[in-house]
Amino acid sequence: MSAIDDLVGQFARLPGVGRKTALRLAFHLLKQPEEEARRLAASILEVRERVRPCTRCGNLSEQDPCEICRSSRRDAGTLCVVEESSDIMAIERTGEYRGLYHVLGGRLSPLDGVGPAELNVQPLVERAGAVREVVLATNTSVEGEATALYLGRLLAPLGIRVTRIARGMPVGGDLEYADGVTIAEAFAGRREL
Amino acid sequence: MSAIDDLVGQFARLPGVGRKTALRLAFHLLKQPEEEARRLAASILEVRERVRPCTRCGNLSEQDPCEICRSSRRDAGTLCVVEESSDIMAIERTGEYRGLYHVLGGRLSPLDGVGPAELNVQPLVERAGAVREVVLATNTSVEGEATALYLGRLLAPLGIRVTRIARGMPVGGDLEYADGVTIAEAFAGRREL
Repeated sequence: MSAIDDLVGQFARLPGVGRKTALRLAFHLLKQPEEEARRLAASILEVRERVRPCTRCGNLSEQDPCEICRSSRRDAGTLCVVEESSDIMAIERTGEYRGLYHVLGGRLSPLDGVGPAELNVQPLVERAGAVREVVLATNTSVEGEATALYLGRLLAPLGIRVTRIARGMPVGGDLEYADGVTIAEAFAGRREL
Repeated sequence: MSAIDDLVGQFARLPGVGRKTALRLAFHLLKQPEEEARRLAASILEVRERVRPCTRCGNLSEQDPCEICRSSRRDAGTLCVVEESSDIMAIERTGEYRGLYHVLGGRLSPLDGVGPAELNVQPLVERAGAVREVVLATNTSVEGEATALYLGRLLAPLGIRVTRIARGMPVGGDLEYADGVTIAEAFAGRREL
């Protein structure tokens, strides 16, 4: 197999990258100065070398504990449970949340053989004993909701506040194009103005 | 800057890759077995090391002359002129063309300072003297058309056949959604059934 075909194949294995995009990326790297391609290859190796999951919360980081776990400016009384480390980055970008995180490493999915034992659940129970509130921020997909429900029941005996992120219309959304379930949730979750 | 931010920045410089996609790619590489990431980095370096433009036609290849130029099964009497090496791959996939190629390395674009001297034009004139037909397969964009027109005039004195690829409705296209210029071209280029 030629070097181009090989690279195209590698690119095409990335999420959301089809064969045409993979081709475009490969040719782009061939047209750019060689230095660009070298830097990309080096970054890929470096990220794998330096980035590891935080042993406390599971966040991907170059430090252990991660920047968030070791920060004295975060509220250690709140724990936000997410499916993946990438969710943390999305939440951090908003700047709205000041507590700590806990990465499950996925969601419950019995059909794929993912039960509580396959997720980072037991450490969550241990950490939850020391906080005031656990915010369940798993995705609002079917599996994410099921996971939140499961965790809610599991944490109930601890007597702490367990909350779930709100579901409703995305900001800037158009009722005309929203699905029925979202609209129903938006009505059910309506608040006083 | 952290290793993740660095990799995200590198990915975001690729064509068609925005910040969100770059993030998803970076996290994907962190979730996969390390071997996957290593292989991608190695492929990027290898493609830059092994792939070079063919000194005869400009096609990117691991051999020089490239596979197409050295093939005895290609019709050496026809030359297809394309803007980039990636266009060759698109044409080859169809299996419809059996002649040789000539890569211009771009298109005429006076606003960007790209004139005939910046393109692989002079070698084309030299090669064209030895063929029966030159097929101008530059893109059907404004610059691509201008480039084809320019080359058409330049090659006319050679007394060989100079053709331009057909413009019209893409196969499977919907008249309702086609732009006016394409529809006009489709009518102008209509053929007897």
